[in-house]
Amino acid sequence: MNPEWLGYVAATLTTLSFVPQAIKTIRSRDTRGISLAMYAVFTVGVAFWFAYGVSLGSWPMIVSNVITFVLASAILIVLLRNKRAAG
Amino acid sequence: MNPEWLGYVAATLTTLSFVPQAIKTIRSRDTRGISLAMYAVFTVGVAFWFAYGVSLGSWPMIVSNVITFVLASAILIVLLRNKRAAG
Repeated sequence: MNPEWLGYVAATLTTLSFVPQAIKTIRSRDTRGISLAMYAVFTVGVAFWFAYGVSLGSWPMIVSNVITFVLASAILIVLLRNKRAAG
Repeated sequence: MNPEWLGYVAATLTTLSFVPQAIKTIRSRDTRGISLAMYAVFTVGVAFWFAYGVSLGSWPMIVSNVITFVLASAILIVLLRNKRAAG
């Protein structure tokens, strides 16, 4: 059995999971409870996944990590703005 | 150039990024701002990444996804408890 479908399901789920978080965070600007350190490290990590996907020529990795990068960056920007606003 | 180091850096960063979020959530129990939908979908997605890693025999994928699954599950449990407590 070709296990590639497991990878496609996995990439779809972990990528789409950031959609409700990004919508919630952008709409409410409420970042209480969310770790700035998590999103700072995660966003850099996703950039490395993207680079790894490029080096492998893996389109599913490239596409899913571009989408995840955009969503995680949006959340990170709200976190940084709130941190600056809080002084 | 062997690009495997990109994958190792990526896996290490995205896995470790959940450590500060899990510590913050477990200590404070503050899940305001965190999307339950995100962690529900993300945790299932990580289980698929684990299965994909097993099917490929990729130890870095297996190890990093076991760790991420444990951290994301801990956050999800606090989210579910808070939701139940809120009625």
